[in-house]
Amino acid sequence: MFILHHWPLDPWSRQARLALAEKKCAVELRFQRVWEPEDAFFDLNPAGLTPVLEDRSGETPLVIVQADAILAHLEETRPEPPLLPSDPAGRAEVRRLVTWFDRKFDAEVNAYLLHEKLEKRMQNLGSPDAGIIRAGRDFLRAHLDYMSMLLERRDGLAGPRYSMADLVAAAHLSCVDYLGDVPWDSFPAAKAWYERIKCRPAFRSLLDDRLPGLPPARWYADLDF
Amino acid sequence: MFILHHWPLDPWSRQARLALAEKKCAVELRFQRVWEPEDAFFDLNPAGLTPVLEDRSGETPLVIVQADAILAHLEETRPEPPLLPSDPAGRAEVRRLVTWFDRKFDAEVNAYLLHEKLEKRMQNLGSPDAGIIRAGRDFLRAHLDYMSMLLERRDGLAGPRYSMADLVAAAHLSCVDYLGDVPWDSFPAAKAWYERIKCRPAFRSLLDDRLPGLPPARWYADLDF
Repeated sequence: MFILHHWPLDPWSRQARLALAEKKCAVELRFQRVWEPEDAFFDLNPAGLTPVLEDRSGETPLVIVQADAILAHLEETRPEPPLLPSDPAGRAEVRRLVTWFDRKFDAEVNAYLLHEKLEKRMQNLGSPDAGIIRAGRDFLRAHLDYMSMLLERRDGLAGPRYSMADLVAAAHLSCVDYLGDVPWDSFPAAKAWYERIKCRPAFRSLLDDRLPGLPPARWYADLDF
Repeated sequence: MFILHHWPLDPWSRQARLALAEKKCAVELRFQRVWEPEDAFFDLNPAGLTPVLEDRSGETPLVIVQADAILAHLEETRPEPPLLPSDPAGRAEVRRLVTWFDRKFDAEVNAYLLHEKLEKRMQNLGSPDAGIIRAGRDFLRAHLDYMSMLLERRDGLAGPRYSMADLVAAAHLSCVDYLGDVPWDSFPAAKAWYERIKCRPAFRSLLDDRLPGLPPARWYADLDF
């Protein structure tokens, strides 16, 4: 049995949820406010960040902290279906793109759009800055351009098959998409890719997420958008 | 044969150098200015960031981008000596601390101290801000406190043996130490740990690094400091 401590629109919590669903692990989700974690949560993760996975499937309960560790743990203990290719070149390409989204996309898109539109609202830090939102949207277009270039050559971001790279990219993009910021129609290859991902059974629970007082973009949950 | 594209005081480049040395891989180092990469470097890593490893030891040359991928690649293709424990709980604890340093230490210490004292200088962005340096030093003390707590219970940061967690932490701390910002004497357990790490043969080449015009702290290369 698994317990995942998460916040619905945290891209890393979403990575953990997607990986658990792909690996067909039954999980109990426990809501955690990332910006104001409960005291008891620091016992699980002294850094105070989501996601944290409690893996109670074995004899000794395990606490796995942060998405990178959760994804690696699931891949190592539940290899089917694989989210990493078996050859070193394929694994390196998946990991290159995972880092691309976890670092570069995070610094250039999340830090602008999620911060202005989501974190400021949740933490009462004032109203969003239109200039910063514009800058984040420009960066987002550059990322969609790069994804389009990759997807012209292959069905998955990192290779012929769905991998951890697609999962991580979709987890990040889905948060920005909730806020209505992804100009899908200008990027048909990326749109077709995201359409395929939205149809995966593992993605379904993410599409049901609703933040009180902040409804998603009209097309957020549409499989055909 | 390995070629590593690196910048000497980039904590992630240092992680790759340390892992290569621990695994006893002969490597040719190629200097890359992170803030102004050569055009050809973007062919290796479109994100333009160091480190990038060219692994020419097999039949097909491989390009491995970014420290997480390089560390994972070396661990998978050259398991001896191991930098990850073999049990899931041990691996999770190592990965928790790797993420702690790569994200939290980076955001709270590097973003203040390396940015003010190193990046601003390299990129001619003006003189360092004393208030920001003070804030970075306060954060650094909090991290050293946390490390001391861990090291009271065990010899390595993540467990009884030297692991990827020690390697990653030492790579980050060694950059701040070059700049003279680590108050070692106030943290005897962390100091004893760093002393042991400095004595590892794999660490030696890092202690020889000298940035033109910016000499290291007096004690930087001393094994007994």
